[in-house]
Amino acid sequence: MNRDDALALDAADPLAPLRAQFEIPDGLIYLDGNSLGVLPRATPARVQQVLQQEWGQGLIRSWNSAGWMALPQRVGDKIARLIGAGPGEVVAADSTSVNLYKVLAAALTITAADAPARRVILSERDNFPTDLYIAESLARERGFELVLADSPADLAAKLDKRVALLMLTQVNYRTGRQHDIAALTAAAHAAGAKVVWDLAHSAGALPVDLLGADADFAVGCGYKYLNGGPGAPAFVWAHPRHVERFWQPLAGWIGHAAPFEFKPGYRPAAGIGRYLCGTPAVLGLAALECGVDTVLAAEPLGGLAALRAKSLALSRLFTERVQALCPQLDLVSPLDDAARGSQVCFGHAQIGYAVVQALIARGVIGDFRAPEILRFGFTPLYLRFTDAWDATEHLHQVLVQEEWRRPEFNTRHAVT
Amino acid sequence: MNRDDALALDAADPLAPLRAQFEIPDGLIYLDGNSLGVLPRATPARVQQVLQQEWGQGLIRSWNSAGWMALPQRVGDKIARLIGAGPGEVVAADSTSVNLYKVLAAALTITAADAPARRVILSERDNFPTDLYIAESLARERGFELVLADSPADLAAKLDKRVALLMLTQVNYRTGRQHDIAALTAAAHAAGAKVVWDLAHSAGALPVDLLGADADFAVGCGYKYLNGGPGAPAFVWAHPRHVERFWQPLAGWIGHAAPFEFKPGYRPAAGIGRYLCGTPAVLGLAALECGVDTVLAAEPLGGLAALRAKSLALSRLFTERVQALCPQLDLVSPLDDAARGSQVCFGHAQIGYAVVQALIARGVIGDFRAPEILRFGFTPLYLRFTDAWDATEHLHQVLVQEEWRRPEFNTRHAVT
Repeated sequence: MNRDDALALDAADPLAPLRAQFEIPDGLIYLDGNSLGVLPRATPARVQQVLQQEWGQGLIRSWNSAGWMALPQRVGDKIARLIGAGPGEVVAADSTSVNLYKVLAAALTITAADAPARRVILSERDNFPTDLYIAESLARERGFELVLADSPADLAAKLDKRVALLMLTQVNYRTGRQHDIAALTAAAHAAGAKVVWDLAHSAGALPVDLLGADADFAVGCGYKYLNGGPGAPAFVWAHPRHVERFWQPLAGWIGHAAPFEFKPGYRPAAGIGRYLCGTPAVLGLAALECGVDTVLAAEPLGGLAALRAKSLALSRLFTERVQALCPQLDLVSPLDDAARGSQVCFGHAQIGYAVVQALIARGVIGDFRAPEILRFGFTPLYLRFTDAWDATEHLHQVLVQEEWRRPEFNTRHAVT
Repeated sequence: MNRDDALALDAADPLAPLRAQFEIPDGLIYLDGNSLGVLPRATPARVQQVLQQEWGQGLIRSWNSAGWMALPQRVGDKIARLIGAGPGEVVAADSTSVNLYKVLAAALTITAADAPARRVILSERDNFPTDLYIAESLARERGFELVLADSPADLAAKLDKRVALLMLTQVNYRTGRQHDIAALTAAAHAAGAKVVWDLAHSAGALPVDLLGADADFAVGCGYKYLNGGPGAPAFVWAHPRHVERFWQPLAGWIGHAAPFEFKPGYRPAAGIGRYLCGTPAVLGLAALECGVDTVLAAEPLGGLAALRAKSLALSRLFTERVQALCPQLDLVSPLDDAARGSQVCFGHAQIGYAVVQALIARGVIGDFRAPEILRFGFTPLYLRFTDAWDATEHLHQVLVQEEWRRPEFNTRHAVT
């Protein structure tokens, strides 16, 4: 394979027109859509409309006339189409961390009622830290034990009758390894546990079927593959069989059955509406809706199945070529398509951070994750096969020319 | 007094130039800044900069290069100047309801350690409902009792040795009555209780001195007098003597001491940083900063003391004239300046809702609060004495011409 083959793949790509939905800086190869998705072209105009017309002119009236109050549900319904949930089952609100607190509290309360002897939250040591921190907090608060598995085999071994709740992120943020939601949900249920899925690195990148897998609860992120913008609102889903069993603890007025009656005494709204808390963040929700629309635009072209096939082709091209060109890097993400999410990760002791910085200086944006992981996200909505090809050339050059030795690439600062 | 006198007051008003900071629709008299502040002129350009340059071009790099990660502290420090808190003591994040959950949890945990026999959260029955709902939720979760007072005398009577925590909103959302933060904080401390203040209807409208009053915790709203836009992030403050005593339960990664080490095991950040949870909502925070800047722009003109004096003059003019012109309305807000916040409220059985609708049709936006309250907010940053005068004329006309009888003003829908 050579670069002409990559060009031919782009020419034949039925999803190629979707790239025109985005503002992407000229010459930039952006392999970080798994951390922050790129700007949809529609977003600035929509946000200006919210600012100038809806807020500036409509003012307080826009809560009704511009549909602001319904935004969490409207955007939630669109996200539901991407994750195998039904209409009315998802709301967009708050952050992933806050939503995790809601669903973990729900799951622990339901389990405490149904199976009080189960006192363990089971997760993985390399789950994204915020998931572990929130679980740690709730475990301490409610007298549960947070148990962390170190491998898939260890996870299976620890899924015993003490487990109240299995909490997993579908695609690992650092390794790109993908869990099988259906199989693990079935295993958890067989063991008598509930499951909470964090879809941060999967919603909008690959097909998810929460109802088909019979999952219990899910949360996910708005600013990665959903392209909602920095710190966009997150989303939360509860299976209809659970949703009304529980008053989640962040019992704010927007989750009340009748917030505008202004009466003391909390009465939760019907359905997923009770997972709302404070006033909807209108700017963030408007931008998130534009981002979600860019993924829904793939529906006539085969939707998430087609996006997934392209993502795998992109990441396989990149992986195989880096393996051939850069033997000093160790592949961390799975080679097996079924086990790989939408990102590719390599490890290199010591120089990982500097290599990522040198790539950024060349206009190839991936990111670094401690310890020593080079992470490259492949967002099929806007990446081309030539982007994947050219990125491998840059990575090769950074290594053979030892660009990573430059001092400016070796001064660490916080990265996200 | 006649309209020429109001014109003269505007001509002599040293704060009058501050109105030019805002986009206000022509001909509109906006008396609802206590619900949603108006659009600052600077906001659309700033938000476009965030979208087009920082997100669109800078992408993931902007978390560092554009200072996104520091926005909660940067905006928090500006808000601190408006509420008598020190630098580094306030963060802007999440919603008021979510922040209330954090500080109530903190206050209850500290009290449980210091005075375990105290099991009561004391508040007022007519506090804003979200405050009561969040307190109800935490009380149920942790085995406390939520006790509601029906009057200031009742509040004083109930402030006994069972009370762990007094939770009050400084300015009542429905009546405009203002609490004395210093006196009530001292009374609570004398009774052995901590105090949480909700500054939703006071931050940016009147001088607040949290440190001077020796308060314990505070939260407040970004979209009312701070002009941050619909659903703007809220803020949270903890007194330095408390801030590091407690790990608040929403222990997300952004409140961790070293979020980018990505390690299991929650370690809270130093100071108020531990009251952060998820990824900062950049669009909302950027807009909020523009709003806070409009209030800080009053500093060279006398700051909040000058704004407060103007607010009282505006609300007194409005109150006295409505009392003279519209005897069928009952004054609900206090006539005494020291007891009145920045809003004026009248009651009228049955026709309150329709009167507010008829006023809106005339371009005078106040709002209605169940049951039967007409609420008019006086934001001294952008309201003129002629606005207050003209609003009284419209209200008089709505009543004498019985415009409120029109069917279109009598169809109720949700209002905020």
